[in-house]
Amino acid sequence: MPDALPPRRVGVWLIGARGSVATTAVAGVAAVRAGLRDSTGMVTEQLPVAAGVLPGLDELVFGGHDVSDTPLLKHAEELADDGVIPASVLRGIADDLDATDARIRVGFRPEDGEGPVAAIARLTRDIAEFAAAVDADRVVVVNVASTEAPVTDDPAHADLASLQAALAEGRDVLPPSSLYALAAFSGGCSFVDFTPSVGPRLPALDEAARRAAVPYAGSDGKTGETLVKAALAPMFATRALRVRSWAGTNLLGGGDGATLADPERVSSKLRSKVEGIERVLGGDVVQPLHIDYVPDMGGWKTAWDHIAFEGFLGVKMRMQFTWEGCDSALAAPLIVDLARLVAAAHRSGMSGALPELSYFFKAPLDDAPVDLGSQYQRLCDFAASLSDDT
Amino acid sequence: MPDALPPRRVGVWLIGARGSVATTAVAGVAAVRAGLRDSTGMVTEQLPVAAGVLPGLDELVFGGHDVSDTPLLKHAEELADDGVIPASVLRGIADDLDATDARIRVGFRPEDGEGPVAAIARLTRDIAEFAAAVDADRVVVVNVASTEAPVTDDPAHADLASLQAALAEGRDVLPPSSLYALAAFSGGCSFVDFTPSVGPRLPALDEAARRAAVPYAGSDGKTGETLVKAALAPMFATRALRVRSWAGTNLLGGGDGATLADPERVSSKLRSKVEGIERVLGGDVVQPLHIDYVPDMGGWKTAWDHIAFEGFLGVKMRMQFTWEGCDSALAAPLIVDLARLVAAAHRSGMSGALPELSYFFKAPLDDAPVDLGSQYQRLCDFAASLSDDT
Amino acid sequence: MPDALPPRRVGVWLIGARGSVATTAVAGVAAVRAGLRDSTGMVTEQLPVAAGVLPGLDELVFGGHDVSDTPLLKHAEELADDGVIPASVLRGIADDLDATDARIRVGFRPEDGEGPVAAIARLTRDIAEFAAAVDADRVVVVNVASTEAPVTDDPAHADLASLQAALAEGRDVLPPSSLYALAAFSGGCSFVDFTPSVGPRLPALDEAARRAAVPYAGSDGKTGETLVKAALAPMFATRALRVRSWAGTNLLGGGDGATLADPERVSSKLRSKVEGIERVLGGDVVQPLHIDYVPDMGGWKTAWDHIAFEGFLGVKMRMQFTWEGCDSALAAPLIVDLARLVAAAHRSGMSGALPELSYFFKAPLDDAPVDLGSQYQRLCDFAASLSDDT
Amino acid sequence: MPDALPPRRVGVWLIGARGSVATTAVAGVAAVRAGLRDSTGMVTEQLPVAAGVLPGLDELVFGGHDVSDTPLLKHAEELADDGVIPASVLRGIADDLDATDARIRVGFRPEDGEGPVAAIARLTRDIAEFAAAVDADRVVVVNVASTEAPVTDDPAHADLASLQAALAEGRDVLPPSSLYALAAFSGGCSFVDFTPSVGPRLPALDEAARRAAVPYAGSDGKTGETLVKAALAPMFATRALRVRSWAGTNLLGGGDGATLADPERVSSKLRSKVEGIERVLGGDVVQPLHIDYVPDMGGWKTAWDHIAFEGFLGVKMRMQFTWEGCDSALAAPLIVDLARLVAAAHRSGMSGALPELSYFFKAPLDDAPVDLGSQYQRLCDFAASLSDDT
Repeated sequence: MPDALPPRRVGVWLIGARGSVATTAVAGVAAVRAGLRDSTGMVTEQLPVAAGVLPGLDELVFGGHDVSDTPLLKHAEELADDGVIPASVLRGIADDLDATDARIRVGFRPEDGEGPVAAIARLTRDIAEFAAAVDADRVVVVNVASTEAPVTDDPAHADLASLQAALAEGRDVLPPSSLYALAAFSGGCSFVDFTPSVGPRLPALDEAARRAAVPYAGSDGKTGETLVKAALAPMFATRALRVRSWAGTNLLGGGDGATLADPERVSSKLRSKVEGIERVLGGDVVQPLHIDYVPDMGGWKTAWDHIAFEGFLGVKMRMQFTWEGCDSALAAPLIVDLARLVAAAHRSGMSGALPELSYFFKAPLDDAPVDLGSQYQRLCDFAASLSDDT
Repeated sequence: MPDALPPRRVGVWLIGARGSVATTAVAGVAAVRAGLRDSTGMVTEQLPVAAGVLPGLDELVFGGHDVSDTPLLKHAEELADDGVIPASVLRGIADDLDATDARIRVGFRPEDGEGPVAAIARLTRDIAEFAAAVDADRVVVVNVASTEAPVTDDPAHADLASLQAALAEGRDVLPPSSLYALAAFSGGCSFVDFTPSVGPRLPALDEAARRAAVPYAGSDGKTGETLVKAALAPMFATRALRVRSWAGTNLLGGGDGATLADPERVSSKLRSKVEGIERVLGGDVVQPLHIDYVPDMGGWKTAWDHIAFEGFLGVKMRMQFTWEGCDSALAAPLIVDLARLVAAAHRSGMSGALPELSYFFKAPLDDAPVDLGSQYQRLCDFAASLSDDT
Repeated sequence: MPDALPPRRVGVWLIGARGSVATTAVAGVAAVRAGLRDSTGMVTEQLPVAAGVLPGLDELVFGGHDVSDTPLLKHAEELADDGVIPASVLRGIADDLDATDARIRVGFRPEDGEGPVAAIARLTRDIAEFAAAVDADRVVVVNVASTEAPVTDDPAHADLASLQAALAEGRDVLPPSSLYALAAFSGGCSFVDFTPSVGPRLPALDEAARRAAVPYAGSDGKTGETLVKAALAPMFATRALRVRSWAGTNLLGGGDGATLADPERVSSKLRSKVEGIERVLGGDVVQPLHIDYVPDMGGWKTAWDHIAFEGFLGVKMRMQFTWEGCDSALAAPLIVDLARLVAAAHRSGMSGALPELSYFFKAPLDDAPVDLGSQYQRLCDFAASLSDDT
Repeated sequence: MPDALPPRRVGVWLIGARGSVATTAVAGVAAVRAGLRDSTGMVTEQLPVAAGVLPGLDELVFGGHDVSDTPLLKHAEELADDGVIPASVLRGIADDLDATDARIRVGFRPEDGEGPVAAIARLTRDIAEFAAAVDADRVVVVNVASTEAPVTDDPAHADLASLQAALAEGRDVLPPSSLYALAAFSGGCSFVDFTPSVGPRLPALDEAARRAAVPYAGSDGKTGETLVKAALAPMFATRALRVRSWAGTNLLGGGDGATLADPERVSSKLRSKVEGIERVLGGDVVQPLHIDYVPDMGGWKTAWDHIAFEGFLGVKMRMQFTWEGCDSALAAPLIVDLARLVAAAHRSGMSGALPELSYFFKAPLDDAPVDLGSQYQRLCDFAASLSDDT
């Protein structure tokens, strides 16, 4: 670790910066930097990547937008009560959390009447001021805000010119996640969408990213049940076992659970969750899938999956699994991984969609491979290909 | 299906030919040939392999050794009562089972006083007579007999000359599985060990195989809990999640359960079962593992695994799975797959150990990759490389 | 077993006589009578009841109504393929099934335009002709038909006179289950409702039963997940452990699954299923509950329940269970138990609701105790109180 | 709660006073008294008992013996890190823990060479001094020390005179748990054995208790897997479902896990655990049962049970459950319950074994009922019968 100021800095601008995932990411990086915890859960720490290519943990500076004004430290204390952040660690990183909290600006709220053009300008300016203040070479914007309801198709989504025209007329054709993505691209920042919201997944947005020569990655982080599915489904497929049904029930509390209790918003999530099985095992698999809001579970999630399959001679067999995970603890290190990888891709001169990062996502961009092993192999190849072009 | 005699035939000689796995394999192939069932569970049916390279199902002819004299058909009826073979299928394949049964010879029984040299000669002769009788180009010998207790090391295992000298003196240095392997190699047959017994896994036996220019594959088929472990463990490894303990309990009935109720024999099995986790996740993982004999479960096996792991900031999480499988229905199609692949390898001129087949085994030969995805990739590459040299 | 005709006979008239539960009940009684199986699963075989009070298995004669015309034997063969009835047993009881099948009459179908008064008259006549034909002292009518959608309240439900007036006007105020119950009472027969349908649970129907001096029992047989809940919930309650959530997912195939895939019909079922927990553990328990139709599961049902609770100092703990049962095999012996008990109650001179039988039901009549142990104690007391008044 | 000093005090003398269960009990009572937590998990708070009969929580004073010298507060902090005691609660009760810690005396250690007679005298004196110091009317001694290995039978166990003679000769015929029980009885104190050790379960000890006119209760608290078994087994029994096997695996860390990793000590525990099933379901049930030491689980225990059973027509079905509990949080409130109940029994003039308390124990004394419901009913009757004779 350098004993002077780090030679260069990478800004990580979190949309939903006071949420559980963001708070855990900021706290975790602070804890690792302070030597209070090791880097368990962080994929980039063991990737085959040349020295100096990925920004070091001590080069990352966090800021972000949020519509909540609960201070990071207070949220971190709630997470400590819920068993997500060890209380002993919290004492050692309180200053870091306060420093990050001071860099959080008010997010976009549709109900405030701020028009889309004005909003994009303001959000872009916030990020630029952050970059200047912390002296960051480049900034990765990462969406970890609540899941949005699906968006109605609009002709303005087809290309950037149409979109800009529609926005200039004040038409409400973009959800917040896409406004943030457009703000990022306008400011020359790369973008990661860790949620199932639309974000950059519109032709017009893709065009914006490529014009700005910035890369983006997404969508919908794969942290629990879907991660296990991606590991298990290829086993059935390669063994020629015929999966007849794959049923899942997810119990979760916390803010995420409350959001997903809304049937409209949950539909975005459910779609991402069944796609993987369809792609690996075909469309005939019956897939009942539920997400239930169980407030007493706090930030913890329990998923139960039941897989009914047939073997030789049509013999019926079953497998079940239960996953009991802490979503923030699973998602937070991936946020850091993605910020490092996308920043390095940006530095390497890549732009547009990065399907090479499918290992991290439920709904990968483009035609990424669907089994976890191949996704990881592709990630390793990608990491090895990154160069340090600064 | 050809309306005349198939142009060439491959003999499959089963050690333990009247056991549950062998019976299910013979019944299953008959059922598929008769159009009563499809090839679910058979990996070779979907491999990228050139036409004509793998022997067709209609080219396979079964025979074997066994120490039991319960007819195949009677055992198949018991399996039907246990839900392994559909009763309706059984009616259509009774003649096939009887025909195979007529080709089964008395196996080797240490307690009969038959010396090793005489035994090898007799076993070799049995196989040769079978090959002649059914007009088989080549024969694959497949061990699906009961698991043996581990074997004491002996200097005679080191090379073929020492081994032959020891056998000539009548010394009891080889377990039955290795006698069968030596008989196979002596007769120019390839060999597959689907059990955790020693079989061909001795330097002297490897030398015998290479001298005879025949290939062999093993050991210990991966059909249930260990298969799932091989699919899941890499997920934890690549995600940098620290697995602290991986506990397993296996409940099984049937003949396999009774055999494994013997603490000596079970030790061979338990060793194969923990090795995979050690190789993927390191030696610090606490791995309590039990195999319990529960007679009422018949040919079915239930495994429960509990995995305790840590994520970011040391947060403790858990995963559990239950696998409820029918061992014979899972193992039988793999027997057929392996017979086809090893016969084709033999035909392609390969000899010695085939670590390319690690996808099928708990304890693969040599330094095979340990994650299921890579093992499958290697299998596909191997299949694509096979040529039809006849 | 008597070697002559039994001295007296009890008719069991099944509504849904060609369904899976009815078929299994008829087959099971035939198998026990033929000495092919023992009475496992039959509660009445171990109750403390005086000799001769309960009708013997050889005194029961089955008949019934159904809207399907698939013969019993054919349905039994399908159940054999699904593992519910052993194929070997089926061969020994085919004649019994055919004899029962010959006693099945066409059921009531609202879409046929048969008015309620005519329907009741016809159904009553069918049952009376059955009783005469088989020379039965008395008949118990048992509803095992598909679950109906909930019924709209109507003033005509309040008393028998209003109901009869409404029916005479041809008003459609009763669902089929209640028409059957009224037909039973009109014919002097007792009634058991094993389904969550309304059946006899209306004041006017209760009045009809009491006027006819016949007893009735219900509702909604407790055979799987709810049975386990009734056994477990009191454990949490008496230990003062605070259950915060009790989530359940039920996967089932078969005809029952298809019926319950209809959101209206499933609502009757879900209501019965959550009531028990509310009564034992209070209304604050969060209870997400799903019933999913998974066709490949056939007549089998898998339920997963997840219970989150707090102990001393508010420590959060969890319990999960999976129940993998065959609904027909669980329900069928209870049908026989209930027929015997209600017939004996009728013989003992009881009439109206029998809350003493709450041990069998999800939604017991009146203010029955809610824990399984007390329900069983009440059943034993009831059985001991029965006398043989004939 | 009284606003003056409580009118009378009951001493609770814990054998193993610095262990996890004792620490949690002391901490929990302090937390409830301080209004920081409610009485969740405490059975006595909801029993039908006359006012004033049970000692109030504010009347209890804790002390005890232990061979460890780690202060209670330090152990409580470790338990807070393990999620057993909320960190926020700990801050409010530190003084209470220190005060109790000051009342803990050095326990009996066989390896110290203290003879049995001297040891009993010293232990008795320690307790008497405690009673005097805290001004307690009476003292209940509660054994929550580590499980001992089973004890060899000795003729001296048969009656008190023989035992005293043997002890006077310095013969080593009693394990520590029985020495403590004898010390309790000698000092006129009642005794509770919450462990599977022998404790008071010897004829000579029973005689000592009756002569001293003090009651005692035991053995082996039922807190997790066995509790669930006692709730579920009667369900199978009363439904006439034939349980063929009931397999269990227990994973636990903590001190208890380390102790039970010793095969001799675990044998005491395993015996208690299988007895209940035998008594409810008969001796034919196959019961593989494992206790595995998994250090990373800390004070948490996960049990998986698999129950294979047959229903009507011999159809095979299965149930599984997983119990994830915190042993100390489950046991601690029962310690308090038992202390209150046994103190009240003592006050009511009862002496000798108290089989009425079987609801709390795996291996109840005498011929207690085996199903949890009946055990609870008996406890309620017992509580209602207690009078306030002071």
